[in-house]
Amino acid sequence: MHEKRIEIRWRDMDALGHVNNGVYLSYLEEARDEWLDRVLGRGGQSWGYVLARVEVDFRRELAQADDAVLVRIALLRIGTSSLRTREEILTPDGMLAAAAEAVLVARDLEGGGSRPLSPEERERLELELR
Amino acid sequence: MHEKRIEIRWRDMDALGHVNNGVYLSYLEEARDEWLDRVLGRGGQSWGYVLARVEVDFRRELAQADDAVLVRIALLRIGTSSLRTREEILTPDGMLAAAAEAVLVARDLEGGGSRPLSPEERERLELELR
Amino acid sequence: MHEKRIEIRWRDMDALGHVNNGVYLSYLEEARDEWLDRVLGRGGQSWGYVLARVEVDFRRELAQADDAVLVRIALLRIGTSSLRTREEILTPDGMLAAAAEAVLVARDLEGGGSRPLSPEERERLELELR
Amino acid sequence: MHEKRIEIRWRDMDALGHVNNGVYLSYLEEARDEWLDRVLGRGGQSWGYVLARVEVDFRRELAQADDAVLVRIALLRIGTSSLRTREEILTPDGMLAAAAEAVLVARDLEGGGSRPLSPEERERLELELR
Repeated sequence: MHEKRIEIRWRDMDALGHVNNGVYLSYLEEARDEWLDRVLGRGGQSWGYVLARVEVDFRRELAQADDAVLVRIALLRIGTSSLRTREEILTPDGMLAAAAEAVLVARDLEGGGSRPLSPEERERLELELR
Repeated sequence: MHEKRIEIRWRDMDALGHVNNGVYLSYLEEARDEWLDRVLGRGGQSWGYVLARVEVDFRRELAQADDAVLVRIALLRIGTSSLRTREEILTPDGMLAAAAEAVLVARDLEGGGSRPLSPEERERLELELR
Repeated sequence: MHEKRIEIRWRDMDALGHVNNGVYLSYLEEARDEWLDRVLGRGGQSWGYVLARVEVDFRRELAQADDAVLVRIALLRIGTSSLRTREEILTPDGMLAAAAEAVLVARDLEGGGSRPLSPEERERLELELR
Repeated sequence: MHEKRIEIRWRDMDALGHVNNGVYLSYLEEARDEWLDRVLGRGGQSWGYVLARVEVDFRRELAQADDAVLVRIALLRIGTSSLRTREEILTPDGMLAAAAEAVLVARDLEGGGSRPLSPEERERLELELR
């Protein structure tokens, strides 16, 4: 499991005074990329994972007064060329603001399509399943 | 069904040169709000719907060279206090860039919780199901 | 002079219900890049201009109800390796929302520093001064 | 003087792989609002200051590898109904990425126009000039 604290910015809010729903995806992305960097070693970008699917349940509105969020990324499953993660956004006092699941596909940086996970990648990722 | 053309902005891209995944939610939001305005009469905001859940399948990357996207919103189901929509983002030449489903909850503007759809709302929305 | 109409998006607003000041720079950028594409032929990006300085006077707040803005870019001066522009953001009914001046520097795409404008570039740009 | 560290997000970059110019304004805004909160006591928003003018010199590009920026806000001058600030964005190793000056106008929250600074506000702000 990986945790990252992210400060809420004034620009994250929309005219209803709440963090806009699109920004939730940015929060998840920040934590997910940091996790991939940690697990796969510099990192998410160079190993080339692409978000193929995301489901988000918005449970609680976030506002400037929340100051920051805590994002948690947990690996659920390793496929042939993809990963499935469970992702959460929490308020500083631990209330669930959003629960998500994402599918990441390993991308062939030359060809542009998907590619099978390498044995090294798989080995490192399997340690995250425990 | 509602269709809206949205111009891609330079700011929508991230460092991989593609429209960032969070921006897909903004594209959907733009079209969905315009649709609610048309159906419920000024509108989405004042009637107070909130995005409770969204699932997005990212099918094709979008880049500045695509210039614009076409977003389609179709009403799938009307619940007691919620709506389910099918939403698509297409390239100018009709290729599917993303397919989504969203759940919108009618919000009680005083209390802050959900509220049942009014008979007038329901009547207008039912015309969208055909 | 170049003019571009840009639709205001819900995501452009901040919690005060107005278009956030950073988004004004995105509006200017959209119109400026389109102008460079038109004048220099595909385009702003490939010829490589970089924003070196911008001054913005915010004259009037913009809100969702404005629907769109009109952005105007006029070339003020051509230097050895830079351009100066006068840029305006107008509401649909012609009120000035922001007045700006920008300095763009031609960038050496290999070396990374600035470069002198080419004779061809200069010739095309001079037609914009009239 | 006020200093705030801000983490660079992946979403801050544009397709050239650098932090987009509009995002520099968001960085300045984050630090400026925090400073106003500290000086005027909860705060920037409720006392109602509006950005009336900003000048930014972009000195150095920022990228994901910079990880974070340090933003400094210094008060330059107190007017009848406005403030002038000097603002800087620095890389983690102290290089100047942008230098800015901003004019903030105290806004009459009822009437919508400007208002004179109150004696209490002025007193607190004067301590920031030293």
